[in-house]
Amino acid sequence: MTSSGFRPLDEKSLVEYIKATPALSSKLANQLHGLQIKEVGDGNLNFVYIVISSAGSFVIKQALPYIRSIGESWPMTKDRAYFEAMALREQRRWCSDHVPEVYHFDREMAVIGMRYLEPPHIILRKGLIAGIKYPLLAEHMSEFMARTLFFTSLLYHDTTEHKRAVAEFCGNVELCRHTGLVVFSDPYKVSQYNWWTSPYLDHDAEAVREDNILKLEVAELKSMFCERSQALVHGDLHTGSVMVTPDSTQVIDPEFGFYGPMGFDIGAFLGNLILAYFAQDGHADQVNDRKTYKEWILKTIEQTWNLFHKKFTALWNEHRNGSGEAYLPEIYNNPELQLLTQKKYMQDLLHDTLGFGAAKMIRRIVGVAHVEDFESIVDASKRANCERQALVFAKMLLKERRKFQAITEVVSAIQQEQS
Amino acid sequence: MTSSGFRPLDEKSLVEYIKATPALSSKLANQLHGLQIKEVGDGNLNFVYIVISSAGSFVIKQALPYIRSIGESWPMTKDRAYFEAMALREQRRWCSDHVPEVYHFDREMAVIGMRYLEPPHIILRKGLIAGIKYPLLAEHMSEFMARTLFFTSLLYHDTTEHKRAVAEFCGNVELCRHTGLVVFSDPYKVSQYNWWTSPYLDHDAEAVREDNILKLEVAELKSMFCERSQALVHGDLHTGSVMVTPDSTQVIDPEFGFYGPMGFDIGAFLGNLILAYFAQDGHADQVNDRKTYKEWILKTIEQTWNLFHKKFTALWNEHRNGSGEAYLPEIYNNPELQLLTQKKYMQDLLHDTLGFGAAKMIRRIVGVAHVEDFESIVDASKRANCERQALVFAKMLLKERRKFQAITEVVSAIQQEQS
Repeated sequence: MTSSGFRPLDEKSLVEYIKATPALSSKLANQLHGLQIKEVGDGNLNFVYIVISSAGSFVIKQALPYIRSIGESWPMTKDRAYFEAMALREQRRWCSDHVPEVYHFDREMAVIGMRYLEPPHIILRKGLIAGIKYPLLAEHMSEFMARTLFFTSLLYHDTTEHKRAVAEFCGNVELCRHTGLVVFSDPYKVSQYNWWTSPYLDHDAEAVREDNILKLEVAELKSMFCERSQALVHGDLHTGSVMVTPDSTQVIDPEFGFYGPMGFDIGAFLGNLILAYFAQDGHADQVNDRKTYKEWILKTIEQTWNLFHKKFTALWNEHRNGSGEAYLPEIYNNPELQLLTQKKYMQDLLHDTLGFGAAKMIRRIVGVAHVEDFESIVDASKRANCERQALVFAKMLLKERRKFQAITEVVSAIQQEQS
Repeated sequence: MTSSGFRPLDEKSLVEYIKATPALSSKLANQLHGLQIKEVGDGNLNFVYIVISSAGSFVIKQALPYIRSIGESWPMTKDRAYFEAMALREQRRWCSDHVPEVYHFDREMAVIGMRYLEPPHIILRKGLIAGIKYPLLAEHMSEFMARTLFFTSLLYHDTTEHKRAVAEFCGNVELCRHTGLVVFSDPYKVSQYNWWTSPYLDHDAEAVREDNILKLEVAELKSMFCERSQALVHGDLHTGSVMVTPDSTQVIDPEFGFYGPMGFDIGAFLGNLILAYFAQDGHADQVNDRKTYKEWILKTIEQTWNLFHKKFTALWNEHRNGSGEAYLPEIYNNPELQLLTQKKYMQDLLHDTLGFGAAKMIRRIVGVAHVEDFESIVDASKRANCERQALVFAKMLLKERRKFQAITEVVSAIQQEQS
């Protein structure tokens, strides 16, 4: 791939870039002196600049042709910015309340200019570590997932529309391939990038690599991830891809977006909430034992799925006579059958969700990229205990997922793991 | 779509076309006088000309922008010829023994020039109606299916290769959509194109339209058909897409080709053999009761699956350390696990095969396009009896497919249906 027009921005060249880009400079009322520019990219992949003037603000995100946290030794196409911009626009089309607006996209430079999510927005994961409750989180996230997944599936798309969109997002193969490796492969083999809380979890990591039944189930999930174009998924919907205040929930960073199984998104979100839950004992102290906070996390897990279920099936019922070609109304033409098909669809989706959620948990404990929920627990032995509980639960969930009929059963199983 | 350079050929303009096309005229040693040209398209879709001179021969197939058997009232993109040519080349790459060579392709004109499958090649379906045994059929078809499906799956492809190919064949959406409608939709609703042996099967057709459990299962198959990019499937692999002699088996007409579930091809072939089986009583007479022929069909069904299983898993074992990314050798690293994963993969594939096979049977009895196996039974009452047995069996197979562990159990169930 040529990068003829590409150059990495720094704080100085960024000002020139903004000056030359009306879609950006107009957001600042063309007042470019006294700009505040701050690089804040704390993710693994990109550079992120916050740009603020007295007249306005935005965020500039630039993808570089490698993974930022690892360096040029792990190249990754900067064209991911194109798919991120596409996914942001599509998701905002269906759920404008929870997706920030894109002001500007420059494919050559791999630059996205978008809404600055101003304070008190913080990354949800940091809020969960701090023990902050977000009473609207389940409501908002279920809304985001129900709407973005429903409207990009064959429940709403006709076949022509669907195949066109699937083909377009096949182009994001490099990021799909990366996800496939770090989620479904690396944790199950010896890999130079894997790490864990050693020596405490040495045996646990080895047990993951030697668990035939686990690997058998992971193969099925990987094949679904690689082969099934069910809807446009965010592709990386963990609690670090969500920014929150008590009133606002904004989903960012869909650069791993592609047409994949819906359960991959729902599982990522719920799986990361479960990780947050198991990390709480590591954050407990004499001032706050985190007990009621843990209850809140469990409640949020339960509500997120139940509200998702309610909203998704409501959209389905509302659009039953629409252009979607999966369940033609002339065939699925009686209430009993409609109920039967929805029940089966949602049950299968729950099982996919639990499987993918479990896989996402496992890879955060023994794979390459860990989560701050655990990493911020300074005492290694305490951290390892939290991680082990999460790992034991995730392995069970991945293997036994088809036995769960409702999210309440999952919540009970989480509680049992700690009793 | 513009059709600027497109014109339908007739026997006269075809000669001019050949003259202007070196890839074709050279096949005839540039001797164009005394050409024999015969239009033989007996399929539903295209015009097919056999061109023979003293020096050589070929077939010219031209797609028109509608379905030939229905007329301009059912338009269908002529670009299907492009995907047919692509699929023929890809399948021949992996299985040159059973796929005819393409000499020439003209996308604008939607013309394919390819090997003429000379007598005594006949359409397999006609051979099955005539009661002719093909001792190598199972061997050859299992070879075709094992090789074309394996080498275009993630067992052989890396992710990049796979997504590129999937995206390309997403372009064949119009034919996919057509298949989706005629196989998974039309038979289950009132449709102007549906027909059946009336009045004998009126009740049976209605029962299909009112069978909630059947429709529930069909929805799952349709979603797999639309969403799962497992391998490059032929897309229409019934016994009318195969030409045979006692020594040769050639698979033609992959214009419905796309990346879909493998079971769709295997099911199409086996389902059509089962239709041929149930039609035999309608072809029996005092000279030939067809009993031993029916035994041969059952044997062929059994051998086709078993040989497919053997060849497919042998390819898998042979390429275990190759570029395929579904089962990385560092993870699937012990014989017990390898056996376990293969067993699960092949069991799932058998169930997909039985489901799709059953759906293909049903649509040939109560949907728009029927099969000559039954249509050639002149006595309508006798024909209806044969069709009803096939329909009853297919409905059971579609609903109960997950209970079958081996193809021998399917064969026993077929025999029981007739006892």
